[in-house]
Amino acid sequence: MSKPLILVTNDDGMFAPGLRALVEVVKELGEVVVVAPDSPQSGMGHAITITEPIRLHRVKALEDVEAYECSGTPVDCVKLARHVVLKDRRIDLCVSGINHGSNAAINIIYSGTMSAAMEASLEGIKSIGFSSLDFSFKADFAPQQPYVRKICEYMLNGNSGSNLLNVNMPITKIIGIKVCRQAEARWVEEFQEGIDPRGQKYYWLTGRFENQDDGNDDTDISALNAGYISVVPSIHDLTDYSALDELRKLEQ
Amino acid sequence: MSKPLILVTNDDGMFAPGLRALVEVVKELGEVVVVAPDSPQSGMGHAITITEPIRLHRVKALEDVEAYECSGTPVDCVKLARHVVLKDRRIDLCVSGINHGSNAAINIIYSGTMSAAMEASLEGIKSIGFSSLDFSFKADFAPQQPYVRKICEYMLNGNSGSNLLNVNMPITKIIGIKVCRQAEARWVEEFQEGIDPRGQKYYWLTGRFENQDDGNDDTDISALNAGYISVVPSIHDLTDYSALDELRKLEQ
Repeated sequence: MSKPLILVTNDDGMFAPGLRALVEVVKELGEVVVVAPDSPQSGMGHAITITEPIRLHRVKALEDVEAYECSGTPVDCVKLARHVVLKDRRIDLCVSGINHGSNAAINIIYSGTMSAAMEASLEGIKSIGFSSLDFSFKADFAPQQPYVRKICEYMLNGNSGSNLLNVNMPITKIIGIKVCRQAEARWVEEFQEGIDPRGQKYYWLTGRFENQDDGNDDTDISALNAGYISVVPSIHDLTDYSALDELRKLEQ
Repeated sequence: MSKPLILVTNDDGMFAPGLRALVEVVKELGEVVVVAPDSPQSGMGHAITITEPIRLHRVKALEDVEAYECSGTPVDCVKLARHVVLKDRRIDLCVSGINHGSNAAINIIYSGTMSAAMEASLEGIKSIGFSSLDFSFKADFAPQQPYVRKICEYMLNGNSGSNLLNVNMPITKIIGIKVCRQAEARWVEEFQEGIDPRGQKYYWLTGRFENQDDGNDDTDISALNAGYISVVPSIHDLTDYSALDELRKLEQ
C-alpha cells in the first residue's frame, strides 16, 4: 500500500513553530506537502482572494518536505493545493495548524486555521484543525504531539463518522481526549480608541471571551477547562432545521 | 411606541445600488443607521481586522440617513456599529445587502454579506442577509423590494423562530417566498494561470458552481430555479451532532 498523502496548512504562516510541530508528527504517517500563507492570516475566517492574483512559490523551509508559500488566505492555500500543486492526486488527509491560540467555541467561524480545514472537507477530504491554547511562539508542543498523532491516525483509518474535526489542546497536564459540542460563547468587544501620528482617530479591535454555556459539561470549553483535548465534529450546512416549520408562515 | 432601530450594512460598499435599494425599504420601517465598508469586500467571509487599526468616518452618502464608512471587513462594520456607533442603544434589526450576486448554498460561508448578518445575530440581534442573483450594478431591485419589506416586517414582529435568515432573490418574475434548507453544493475551482508584466507567474481564482443536491426540491437552489425567493434560517453552531456518538471511540 502506498503512503497516504497529507496536506498541511495553517494561518500563522510557514515559520510558525506550530506548523513545524504538526509536520514532525504527520511526516511519520505519510507523504507530506505543505502549502501555507506567506504572512500571518489570523482572523481571516473563510475569506478568499477574488479581486487580485495569488502568488505561489516553492520554498526550502522544512527539511525533507515539499513546501509552498502562498500570498492568499488559508482557504486560498487549500484551493491552490488541491487544484494546482496536487492536481490529479488524491489527498488522504488535510491538517491545519497547530494554531497558536484557541479556536474553540465561536472562534471556529473567525479562524483561518479552521476555515482552511473546512475548505478541504468541502472537497471531500478528511480534515482536522489543531489549535493550542498557548498563544506564545515559544510554546512547547511536545505534550500535544502524541495526541495529534492519535487523532490523525484515527481519521486516516477512515471510521470517524465525520469529515471535519475542530481539535483544541490544553498546554500541559493533558488528561485525555473528549468529544464534545461547540460551546455557546461570544466575544464581548471593547474597541481601543486612539489618535494616530497624523492626528486621525482609529479603532483597534480587542475584547474578552464570554462563555454563555457555563455549567454545562458537554462543551469544548468545559472539556478544555478540565484538562482534556476537545474534539468537535463540524459541518458546513448552516441550516437551522428546527426553525423551518415555524418560519413557513412567511410563505403565505 | 418608538420606531425600531435598523442597522444596514453590506459587503459591496456604500455606493452599491443594492445598499440603496435596501435603505429605501427599511427607511419606511424605522430609524436607519448605515455602517458599510469603504471598499468592496466580497468573499471576505467572517474575516476580522486584528493586526491593524480600523477607520470609521461619518459620510453624507444617503439622503436623510446617518451613514458611516469603515475601513474594515463587513464583520468589523457590525462590531463597530454595535460597540461604537450605536453603543448603549438596542438594535432591533440588522439587514445586510442587497448583495449583487447569489449567496445561496455554500456561498454563505464565503460571503461578507452573510457573515455581517451572522455577526449581528451572535450579538442577539435579529438579522437578515439579502442577495440578488443579478451581479450587475445596473440591477433593478424594484420587483424584489416588496418582498424585502415583507421579510423585514416579519422579523421585526418577532415571531420568526430564527435570529438569522439567508434570503436570495431571483431577478424577475418572482412567484413567492419559499422557506428551505441550504443546498449541498460546492465550487469547482479552475485557477487561471498567467504571467504578470514583470514576468512572474500568478494564479487567479475562478470556477463554476456545482449543485450536488440536484433533484431535491427542498433546497434554496431549487427554490430559486423555480422562481421563488429562498429563505434559509441559519445558525452559527457548527457541531455535527450526528457524528458525536461514533466519534467517542476516539476518547479511549
